[in-house]
Amino acid sequence: MEYRKLKDQDDDGNSAAGEDIENLRGKPLSIAASLGGGPVDPKWKRKSMVTLALTVLTSSQAILIVWSKRAGKYEYSVTTANFSVEALKCLLSLAALARIWNNEGVTDDNRLSTTLDEVIVYPIPASLYLVKNLLQYYIFAYVDAPGYQILKNLNIISTGVLYRIILKRKLSEIQWAAFVILCAGCTTAQLNPSSDHVLQTPLQGWVMAIVMALLSGFAGVYTEAIIKKRPSRNINVQNFWLYVFGMIFNAAAIVIQDFDAVVNKGFFHGYSFITVLMILNHALSGIAVSMVMKYADNIVKVYSTSVAMLLTAVVSVFLFGFHLSLAFFLGSTVVSVSVYLHSIGKVR
Amino acid sequence: MEYRKLKDQDDDGNSAAGEDIENLRGKPLSIAASLGGGPVDPKWKRKSMVTLALTVLTSSQAILIVWSKRAGKYEYSVTTANFSVEALKCLLSLAALARIWNNEGVTDDNRLSTTLDEVIVYPIPASLYLVKNLLQYYIFAYVDAPGYQILKNLNIISTGVLYRIILKRKLSEIQWAAFVILCAGCTTAQLNPSSDHVLQTPLQGWVMAIVMALLSGFAGVYTEAIIKKRPSRNINVQNFWLYVFGMIFNAAAIVIQDFDAVVNKGFFHGYSFITVLMILNHALSGIAVSMVMKYADNIVKVYSTSVAMLLTAVVSVFLFGFHLSLAFFLGSTVVSVSVYLHSIGKVR
Repeated sequence: MEYRKLKDQDDDGNSAAGEDIENLRGKPLSIAASLGGGPVDPKWKRKSMVTLALTVLTSSQAILIVWSKRAGKYEYSVTTANFSVEALKCLLSLAALARIWNNEGVTDDNRLSTTLDEVIVYPIPASLYLVKNLLQYYIFAYVDAPGYQILKNLNIISTGVLYRIILKRKLSEIQWAAFVILCAGCTTAQLNPSSDHVLQTPLQGWVMAIVMALLSGFAGVYTEAIIKKRPSRNINVQNFWLYVFGMIFNAAAIVIQDFDAVVNKGFFHGYSFITVLMILNHALSGIAVSMVMKYADNIVKVYSTSVAMLLTAVVSVFLFGFHLSLAFFLGSTVVSVSVYLHSIGKVR
Repeated sequence: MEYRKLKDQDDDGNSAAGEDIENLRGKPLSIAASLGGGPVDPKWKRKSMVTLALTVLTSSQAILIVWSKRAGKYEYSVTTANFSVEALKCLLSLAALARIWNNEGVTDDNRLSTTLDEVIVYPIPASLYLVKNLLQYYIFAYVDAPGYQILKNLNIISTGVLYRIILKRKLSEIQWAAFVILCAGCTTAQLNPSSDHVLQTPLQGWVMAIVMALLSGFAGVYTEAIIKKRPSRNINVQNFWLYVFGMIFNAAAIVIQDFDAVVNKGFFHGYSFITVLMILNHALSGIAVSMVMKYADNIVKVYSTSVAMLLTAVVSVFLFGFHLSLAFFLGSTVVSVSVYLHSIGKVR
């Protein structure tokens, strides 16, 4: 299981706050050393593994969604699925912790009990996502679904800007340029004949899209700030508390939206094999995101999910017989150059 | 007249072979000094002016083509128009030379007489363009016109590669990345709903498109090599001899293709006011290209014509009521970032 593998890397519990994926560059010696059985920088290895895990999980996530859509309409209530994801993440964090307690004993860094001072900020990301998800219902009054997919790329820019403002971490001018073309490249790769409709989005739609991008960017950056604030604290404890609040917020959503359906038809009504797979995938992706926040940062997360989007399209060609458009090739080229520029554009 | 203005800069006759548009960066002081009446680096000023002239002339060229298409079919023979362009360029070069001889007297650098050693390479670019133009007739068996517009962007890559190989001038890794996204950005900006057809281009079409890109890139780079080989030689003399061979090759094309039409209907048959404007524009653009080769290089030329393509589209919105697509905005963003990266990515 991907998560277990990642966990095995999680020994020293130190944050890699000072690093970034640009460190991947100039590491061929480490890779060569690793192939030859020599020593490898464990921080770099851990960072690469969580990034790879996030990329693979995110791309398979989109494929599962396509698969489930092909299989028919969603019959289950989305709110119970979201709750299940949070609950599963909680369980997985606890299981990982139990293993660590067994091996290393309980320490200040890996004990589950917490202080109000530590835990008080944990509900903030969950509540930001809640507001964003509520807005999502209203934006469809102004934008259609493909248009919304296009506008979601504003997340890339908002994450970069908030990362700079809130975490006060600098990107070089080359990395900023790379970030702008990452956004343009991802959008280009998603272009389809109806994409031009998005230019007719009324002002309210634009404002909502920008607010949603800011909320989502802020939630991501804030999560990174929370996790990195206590570098020596075990990530599984931090995850546990994050996911506890996720469960609470999603329980509230069930009560508000799907109370009747759950009471009448049962909590797991309409779950299929693919629903279970999707919940498992979402749980593992969520944990991978936390790991990336701990050992890398939001910029790595954005690159990872962008590359995942391209991977999904390529895999869909084989799985579902999708055709790749010229726009996809052009967008992929631009995204690849962006990854390259980010890696060579390290702040000196 | 643009050409006259450019000519006034052409006093010392030294080549700017060691420079590039990245020199535009870090020049705000010079601009400030120029606004304040202070001294300005004359090489930089000359380079900026020829680049600006090429950009404006190229974009107005495309607009004239759209205008002439709207006005109806071409009634004149294209070969006579091409010959007229070469003849006009010859005349303009001679006029500029006459002025220089008046002011400075005849010197070794500005005398019209030449040696076989100097002039023997001059027919090469003209003959390369001839072969390319012949191929152009055959490629339409495999690609439609919009597809050909897309494939023409391969010129950007071929120019960069040949510039590196033949002129042995280095681009930094950032400038290479910028060049790749320039090609992707220009293509993205030109995307339209039928662009995906280009992916179905058969192998012969691709091979011909690549050969044409190489021929066109080679002709451009070779022209730069010829012009820069004798840095102190007056550009108008160099142009005169280039255009003389252009006239010869185009005269041959008239005889081969349009001999009967010219004999029966006359040389200037079907010329309209807009035809004359287009000939004038092509002549001035051609001279601007030579100037850019002399005082800047092929990379500047590629950037200049790419920016001109975007300018044309924007101006067409106002002139012809064109609509800009989302792809155009994305492509323009990528091209703009490419220009920025090229300017900051100077080889150290």
